[in-house]
Amino acid sequence: MEEVDHLAHERSMAQFDVETMKIVWAGSQHAFEVSDRISRLVASDPVFRKDDRTMLSRKDLFKNTLRKSAHAWKRIIELRLTDEEASRVRFFIDEPGFMDLHWGMFIPAIKGQGTEEQQKKWLPLAYKMQIIGCYAQTELGHGSNVQGLETTATFDPKTDEFIIHSPTLTSSKWWPGGLGKVSTHAMVYARLMTDGQDHGVHGFIVQIRSLDDHSPLPGITIGDIGMKFGNGAYNSMDNGVLRFDRVRIHRDHMMMRVSQVTREGKFMQSDVPRQLVYGTMVYVRQTIVSDASSALSRAVCIATRYSAVRRQFGSQDGEPETQVIDYKTQQNRLFPLLASAYAFRFVGEWLKWLYTDVTQRLEANDFSTLPEAHACTAGLKSLTTTATADGIEECRKLCGGHGYLCSSGLPELFAVYIPACTYEGDNIVLLLQVARFLMKTVAQLGSGKKPVGTTSYMGQVEQLMQCQCDVQRAEDWLKPSVILNAFQARAARMSVACAQNLSKFSSPEEGVAELSADLAEAAVAHCQLIVVTKFIEKLQQDIPGMGVKEQLEALCNIYALSLIHKYQGDFLANGCITSKQASLVSVQLRSLYSQVRPNAIALVDAFNYTDHFLGSVLGRYDGNVYPKLYEEAWKDPLNDSVVPDGYHEYIKPMLKQQLRTARL
Amino acid sequence: MEEVDHLAHERSMAQFDVETMKIVWAGSQHAFEVSDRISRLVASDPVFRKDDRTMLSRKDLFKNTLRKSAHAWKRIIELRLTDEEASRVRFFIDEPGFMDLHWGMFIPAIKGQGTEEQQKKWLPLAYKMQIIGCYAQTELGHGSNVQGLETTATFDPKTDEFIIHSPTLTSSKWWPGGLGKVSTHAMVYARLMTDGQDHGVHGFIVQIRSLDDHSPLPGITIGDIGMKFGNGAYNSMDNGVLRFDRVRIHRDHMMMRVSQVTREGKFMQSDVPRQLVYGTMVYVRQTIVSDASSALSRAVCIATRYSAVRRQFGSQDGEPETQVIDYKTQQNRLFPLLASAYAFRFVGEWLKWLYTDVTQRLEANDFSTLPEAHACTAGLKSLTTTATADGIEECRKLCGGHGYLCSSGLPELFAVYIPACTYEGDNIVLLLQVARFLMKTVAQLGSGKKPVGTTSYMGQVEQLMQCQCDVQRAEDWLKPSVILNAFQARAARMSVACAQNLSKFSSPEEGVAELSADLAEAAVAHCQLIVVTKFIEKLQQDIPGMGVKEQLEALCNIYALSLIHKYQGDFLANGCITSKQASLVSVQLRSLYSQVRPNAIALVDAFNYTDHFLGSVLGRYDGNVYPKLYEEAWKDPLNDSVVPDGYHEYIKPMLKQQLRTARL
Repeated sequence: MEEVDHLAHERSMAQFDVETMKIVWAGSQHAFEVSDRISRLVASDPVFRKDDRTMLSRKDLFKNTLRKSAHAWKRIIELRLTDEEASRVRFFIDEPGFMDLHWGMFIPAIKGQGTEEQQKKWLPLAYKMQIIGCYAQTELGHGSNVQGLETTATFDPKTDEFIIHSPTLTSSKWWPGGLGKVSTHAMVYARLMTDGQDHGVHGFIVQIRSLDDHSPLPGITIGDIGMKFGNGAYNSMDNGVLRFDRVRIHRDHMMMRVSQVTREGKFMQSDVPRQLVYGTMVYVRQTIVSDASSALSRAVCIATRYSAVRRQFGSQDGEPETQVIDYKTQQNRLFPLLASAYAFRFVGEWLKWLYTDVTQRLEANDFSTLPEAHACTAGLKSLTTTATADGIEECRKLCGGHGYLCSSGLPELFAVYIPACTYEGDNIVLLLQVARFLMKTVAQLGSGKKPVGTTSYMGQVEQLMQCQCDVQRAEDWLKPSVILNAFQARAARMSVACAQNLSKFSSPEEGVAELSADLAEAAVAHCQLIVVTKFIEKLQQDIPGMGVKEQLEALCNIYALSLIHKYQGDFLANGCITSKQASLVSVQLRSLYSQVRPNAIALVDAFNYTDHFLGSVLGRYDGNVYPKLYEEAWKDPLNDSVVPDGYHEYIKPMLKQQLRTARL
Repeated sequence: MEEVDHLAHERSMAQFDVETMKIVWAGSQHAFEVSDRISRLVASDPVFRKDDRTMLSRKDLFKNTLRKSAHAWKRIIELRLTDEEASRVRFFIDEPGFMDLHWGMFIPAIKGQGTEEQQKKWLPLAYKMQIIGCYAQTELGHGSNVQGLETTATFDPKTDEFIIHSPTLTSSKWWPGGLGKVSTHAMVYARLMTDGQDHGVHGFIVQIRSLDDHSPLPGITIGDIGMKFGNGAYNSMDNGVLRFDRVRIHRDHMMMRVSQVTREGKFMQSDVPRQLVYGTMVYVRQTIVSDASSALSRAVCIATRYSAVRRQFGSQDGEPETQVIDYKTQQNRLFPLLASAYAFRFVGEWLKWLYTDVTQRLEANDFSTLPEAHACTAGLKSLTTTATADGIEECRKLCGGHGYLCSSGLPELFAVYIPACTYEGDNIVLLLQVARFLMKTVAQLGSGKKPVGTTSYMGQVEQLMQCQCDVQRAEDWLKPSVILNAFQARAARMSVACAQNLSKFSSPEEGVAELSADLAEAAVAHCQLIVVTKFIEKLQQDIPGMGVKEQLEALCNIYALSLIHKYQGDFLANGCITSKQASLVSVQLRSLYSQVRPNAIALVDAFNYTDHFLGSVLGRYDGNVYPKLYEEAWKDPLNDSVVPDGYHEYIKPMLKQQLRTARL
C-alpha cells in the first residue's frame, strides 16, 4: 500500500510545536496519554469498525451496537481499565447506546438521590452491569416542563408499596435512551401522591424487564419510539416508550435522600439540601460543553484538511488550481469555527473546575455561588451546543458537494449531535433562565449585594455604561483589555436595557413574556463574554512549547473578533463601538486569518484524532481523499449488481413502451 | 374512526378568507385547481405512500422509487395528463429520482444546446422515455469550476467520431442523478479537442447502457456513489460515478447549436449567441427559488400546527398549559419564517416573469438586461436556498424533541433539501458573482450608463448615501417607502464601501480576494432588497378576498423588519438607521406577531398541502398528534419482537456475568 502524506507540505509550514499543543488540547500530559492510548486501542479493534454504520438497517445497526457494548465491557474487564479509561473507551467507540445512559444518568441519579443504604443496594449491581438502567423522565406530553409530568406514584399504606401508573396517553414515558429494548431497570420520575396529596415529581427505581428472559414485567408496555434523524446516528440507541398499568414497587424504591415517605405514608423532607440537584445539573452540563468542543473540533478537522486537499479555480498557465483553504471566504467561515473549538475546550475545562468548586462549597453548606454557577452552566450549555450544531453543518457546506456523502462523516456527525440542543434543557428555555438571573443581578445592584463569579463585571456597571472603546488602528483590537471591555460593555448594556424595558410593563410576567426575545439576546451576550473571558484567562497562564501560546492568542482573537463582527448590531446599537471600529475588526480579522493559515493543518492535528474516530474520507490524516472516495462508493449495496433490482419490472417496460400492460 | 379537528378553534380565529389566500399562494385559480386535484390524486394512490421511506434499506428504497416512477408514468399516460399536470405529479410524489434529471436537465439541455435536427432526433425518444437521460457535468475533482473539467472529447477525423475519455481518477463523472443505475444516455460535458487544440467544455450525448439488457456499454465503468445525508431523503436517487475508457461516439452526438465541429475537424462558432446559456440558467434557478418556497412553507406548516397543539408550562389552577405558539420566543423564530415562505413565493413568481422577459429579449437580440437578470437569479438562488435550509432546521428545533423523530417529517425534509445550497452554483460562489456585478454597476455609475432592473436604485446612489431614515414611532416602520429606503440605502452604501475599499488594493484581483467576505455581505444586502421590493410590489396589485391583503401586508412587514433586526449591524454601521430606530423595529415586530398569531394556522392552511405531501405526524391537518406519534412508534422494525435480536448473544451474558467466556 502506497503511504504518501499529501498534507506533509502543510504540516511542514507549522510555526509551533504540535506535540505540546496536543497536551494543551487534552488538558494534561496524563489526559493526553490516556486518550491517545485508548483511541488507538479502539481504532485497532475490528469489532469497533464503524464505516458501514450508515448502510445498516435499523435492526442490524442496533444489534451491532449491542455487540460493541458487550465487547467493550469485556475488554474493560479483561484489561482491568480504570474508570477514566473505560469512559474513554465508550467515547472513542463513538456510537450512542444504552451504556451512555446506564453510566451517565442512571448511576449518577442513584448517587445523587439515593440514601446511603440505597446506594449500597443498587450501585454494586449497576457497576457490575448485573442490572442495566435508564433514566425515564420525559413523557410524550412533557419535556421542558418537568414539573408537569403526569405519571403518578401513589403510596398504598396497606402494602407499603407505590403504585406507578400512566393515567393518560401523554403520560407515556417517551425518549429515554436504553429504555426501548435493553434496560432492566428505570429511574422513573413520577408525581408522588400520598393520602390524596400531590408532593411533586420524585425518582423511583422500577424494574421493567425480567432478569431471566428479558420480557417486560406485568403491567408494563414498552417499545422503541422509531427512527430518528439521519442514517446511523442516534438510531443505534433504543430511545423508548413506557407505560405503566398500576405497577407496584416497594416503598424503598423511592429515592429518599432528599425527601422520604414513611411506613405510615407521611411525606417528609430530609435535612439534605435540595440544592444538591443543581450540583448534578452543573456536572451534566459541564460534560455537554466538553462534548461540544469534541464534536465541533471533529467537524473542523475534517473541513480544514479537506479544504487543503481540495483545489478549485485560479489555475494559471497549467499550474495547479488554488487550494480552497486559501480563499478568504473559506477562511472567514472556517477559522472562527476552529477558534470556537479551542474556546469551548477551555471554557469546558474551566467548568470542570467550577463543578469541583461548587461541590466543595455545597458540602460546606455554602450556597452563595450556586445560582451564578447554575446560570453560567445553563447558558454555556445553550451557547456551545447551538454553535456546535450550526458549526458542524457549516463545515459540511465548506466541503462542497462531497460533504453531502455519508463517507464524509459530516452528515452523521450532525445528525448525532443536534439532540444536544434539546436534551438537558432546550437551548432557548435555558437562555431565558440565564436572562432571569441577569435581571435579578441587575435589580440587586443598588442593594449593595456584590455580583459574584461570571457576573462580577456587573459591579462596574456605571463605568461600563459610560466607557468608550479606544480602538484607533486595527492592531488595537488585539489587546485583551480592549476586547474584554467591549464584551463587558455590550453584555452590561443589553441587560440594563432589558431591565429598563421590563419596568415599563404593568406586571413582571407580562414584561418577561413580551420581551423574551430581547432577554434571550442579552443572555447570549453574557455567555459569549464568559467564553471570551475564560479564553483570555487561559492565555494568562504559563503555556510552554515553541509558538503554542502565539497560536492560541491568534485563535482567541479570532474567536472574539469574529463574534464582534457577527453581532456588530449589538455592539453598535449600544454604543460600545463605532462604525469605524467595527470596520477595523474586519481588517484585523483578515490579518489574523493569514497568520493562522499556515498553521491550520497542524492546529487540527493537535486534536490527535485517529482516522477511525474521525470516520471521514474527506478528513483523512494523509489527505488521500479522491482514491478513497472512489473506493468507498463501490461498497454501497446498490452496487452489488450492475443491473439494479427492479430493472425488469419497472425500467424495461418503460423503455419498451410496455407499461400499459405491466403490473406494477 | 374518530374525526375531530383539534385545530378547529385556531381556524375559527382567522381574520381573512383562506380560500382566496390559497389562490394567491398558488399564483392563479388555474394553478390552484391543478395542484389541488393532482395532490389529491397522488395522495390517494397507495403506490405513492411514503410513510415507510425512512425505514427502508437503500436497495428497497431505490426499488420502490423505480416502482413509483413507472407507476407515475403509467398514470400520466392513462389519464392523458398535460405537461403541467405531469410535472405536478412528479412534484407531489415528493421523492428524488431519475425522472427529475431526465425531464429537468437532460431534455432542457437538448432543447437549449441541440440543433433543430438534433432536437428532432432525440426529443421524441426522450419524451416517450424510450431513452432515459441524465446530466453528466460535475467530476470528482471539479464542481463549481466547470471550465476545469478534465474529461476529454477528442475528434478523430479518420472515423468522424469523438473519443470520450477520462484521463485521470479526478475526471470521473461524480454526482449526476439518475446516472448510477438507471440512465441509458448521458449529456456528458467534456473538453473538446480537435487537432491538439482545446476548445473548452461542450456537451455530448453518450449512450452508456445497452437498451437491450441495461448493461454498461464497452469502455464504460458506472456505479452509484453511495449513501447520502439522511434516511430516505436523496438516497432514492442513484447519483452516479462514470468513467470512460476511450468511448467512441459519432460526431453528430456533440450538441451543435452554438459551436460545431465539421467533418474535417474544424471548430466553428455558430451565429447563435452564447448568451443563450445564461437564459437556461435563469430558468433553472427560477425553479430553484420556487422550490425553496415550497420546502420552507412545508416546514413552517408543520412547525406552526404543532406549535398550536403543543402545550408547555404556564398552567394555573388546573387550566391547560400554554400553547407554545403563544410564546414570543416561538413567534420570534417562527413568524419570520412564515413570512419568508410567502416572500420567496412572490419573488419566485416574479422570476418566472423575468425569465419570459429575458427570453423574449434574447430572441430579439437584446442582451441589455441579461447580466442583471443573471446576477439577480444567481443571488436569489443563493439567498432563498440558504434561508430555506436554515429555516427547515429551525422549524425542526421549534418542534422540540419530537422534531428529531423521522415521523415529524422534518429530518428528511432537511436532508433532502440542503443539496440545493450546493448544486447549480455553490451559494457563496454565486454571491461573489453577484458582488462582481454590483462592483461593475458602481464603477459605471459615473459613465452615464443607467443601472437597470433590480439595480436601478443605484441610479439614486448620491441621494441614498445621504438620506436619513425618518422613523420616529414604531408604526412608522410600517410604511413601505420607509422600509424600501432603508434597504436601498444599506445595499447601496455597502456596495459603495466595497468599491472604495477595493480601490485601495494594488490589483483588483487581490482586492476581490481579500475583501471577498465583505463582498458576499454586500451581495446579500442587495438580494434581500430585491425580495423586499418584490413583496411590496406584489401588494401594490389588486388583491381581492376578505382580509387577504392585510395579512400579506403584515407578513411583508415581518419579513422586512425581522431582516432589519437580524442585520441591524449593517444598517447601523452604514448609518442607515439609528439605535433608537433599531429598537423601534423590535417593538413593531412584537405588535406584528400579535397581529399574525390568530391567523397563523389559517396562513399555513393556505398552502393547501395534503397530509400525504406534508408527511408529518406533527403537522397533521387535524392536529391529532399524540395518538398518531404513539401509533407510528410501533411500526419500527425494532418493535417486531419484544426481546431484541442480540439479547441472547450480548445482553444476557453481560447481565449474567458470563462475558469472559462469550464469543462476541
